[in-house]
Amino acid sequence: MITVLCGGVGAAKMLRALSLVVDPSTLTGIVNVGDDLVLHGLKICPDLDTITYTLAGLDNTETGWGLAGETWRVRDELAALGGEAWFSLGDRDLATHLYRTERLRSGVDLRTITADLLAHHQVGCTLLPATEDPLSTIFTTTEGDVLSFQEYFVKHHHDVAIAEVHFAGAVDARPTPGVLDAIEHAERIIVSPSNPVISIAPILAIPGVADALADRRNDVVAISPLIGGRALKGPADRLMEELGLGASTRGIAAFYADFAETLVIDSSDADDLGDVIDHGMSCLVIDTVMDSVERSRNLATAVLQ
Amino acid sequence: MITVLCGGVGAAKMLRALSLVVDPSTLTGIVNVGDDLVLHGLKICPDLDTITYTLAGLDNTETGWGLAGETWRVRDELAALGGEAWFSLGDRDLATHLYRTERLRSGVDLRTITADLLAHHQVGCTLLPATEDPLSTIFTTTEGDVLSFQEYFVKHHHDVAIAEVHFAGAVDARPTPGVLDAIEHAERIIVSPSNPVISIAPILAIPGVADALADRRNDVVAISPLIGGRALKGPADRLMEELGLGASTRGIAAFYADFAETLVIDSSDADDLGDVIDHGMSCLVIDTVMDSVERSRNLATAVLQ
Repeated sequence: MITVLCGGVGAAKMLRALSLVVDPSTLTGIVNVGDDLVLHGLKICPDLDTITYTLAGLDNTETGWGLAGETWRVRDELAALGGEAWFSLGDRDLATHLYRTERLRSGVDLRTITADLLAHHQVGCTLLPATEDPLSTIFTTTEGDVLSFQEYFVKHHHDVAIAEVHFAGAVDARPTPGVLDAIEHAERIIVSPSNPVISIAPILAIPGVADALADRRNDVVAISPLIGGRALKGPADRLMEELGLGASTRGIAAFYADFAETLVIDSSDADDLGDVIDHGMSCLVIDTVMDSVERSRNLATAVLQ
Repeated sequence: MITVLCGGVGAAKMLRALSLVVDPSTLTGIVNVGDDLVLHGLKICPDLDTITYTLAGLDNTETGWGLAGETWRVRDELAALGGEAWFSLGDRDLATHLYRTERLRSGVDLRTITADLLAHHQVGCTLLPATEDPLSTIFTTTEGDVLSFQEYFVKHHHDVAIAEVHFAGAVDARPTPGVLDAIEHAERIIVSPSNPVISIAPILAIPGVADALADRRNDVVAISPLIGGRALKGPADRLMEELGLGASTRGIAAFYADFAETLVIDSSDADDLGDVIDHGMSCLVIDTVMDSVERSRNLATAVLQ
């Protein structure tokens, strides 16, 4: 059994890569929920959906987000009404949110709904929301404005300076049943090449998770999201710099050293190998951009060995 | 100023007819909210929407419900997921529900949202939800099953015997600001040819409304929904029979006599004129089916004289 700590896009690619070399039914993703939001009364779980859609082969490879063959009738009508349309909800995607919201309202657990959506899309792996309790990633800008995740990420296109990131509710959140087991009993635990401070940190903030990982340190392999010192996508580098962690392999190593024995870095960052060793970690240098089946397979094989 | 008590389709036609003979800005509809529901987390107000869409010329004249040019992408995807798709939400209609839900969640009053939707659709009259407090029409079947309005109406196609209709929350509901004023100060108050027991009765159940109407009895004109003793549409006749009120002009007259001086009945029910007089009401006999501009105009002119 392999357990994977997951954000959205990078984690989806990691799970897809792992599915090339092991039976998907042996894979369990523990998925960030700090980005989840309620919009128009609908419960939206961006990371769970990104992974589900990608593993189902429904991801839109042209836009890099959303569903293939999506239509926008509802969003266009909503914009015409003057409604809050900055968060683009496609018609097909909306069905997922209506389905999840109705079932949550009728008392079904998010993990069950997630499993049913995976089954519907014939995805073989397991995804567990990191917690089913309220947990929201909150940003404070250098101007003192407080932003929700989607306000920061979508409305402001993460183009605003951040002074602090806070995980509201984390202190009272409990790991979803199965999460600690998946960490305790996995042969290998993989930290996806997701954004450390806003995709992985919200999972670590749930009481019990970081300790469970530290207990398994020898079997934890983290993958740096940096490529040539920059984030492949999203604001990971900018945020790490703004939060004083350093947008560098050194910063990533410092962030993961307590619970990961190995850090995988991209070939373009091979010169940083010493920074990883300095933090008491092993370092694996390999191509980490999963832009072809071959590279994906190579990375997956390497992190499992 | 003219005030109209409203259900859905019949009221929409009545307001459209009145708009042919008076300036729409002089018309205020007090609209039933007993059918309102929260589905998939979305607040849905069927009667407010039916009237708004009809007055905007957006009603689907082929199906008799919903919007013209509607598409069904979300519903079809939701059905594929195995979600609750018995209540068909069109893509265009969904935008209204997302808009309303988001604004309600941000603390805006339903009457303000309703006014903004009317303005967006360039509808000149005023619509007031009868109350902004919780009020739900609940059915108890002869088998003892308890059904919400939409379960009765849409899921079961009103094809189940009803023993009792109850307006949950009515006793604590307050008339929306403007409702009592609209009754007290109107030159004429019109009760639409809507279903008395499930469209008009929920409005009457709000404390203060029935008394305000009774105080204006001389200026209240009610229109029977019966055509040849049968409902033109929907279960009005069946329900009145099942609830022991009688599916007849006599039953309608008895229901409205306390607060309406005049009952308008269709030419096909002219023989029932005596039943109206027996209840101490004036009776106007005229074609009440608003299936042409001319008949609509004639009915509107008659109820205003």
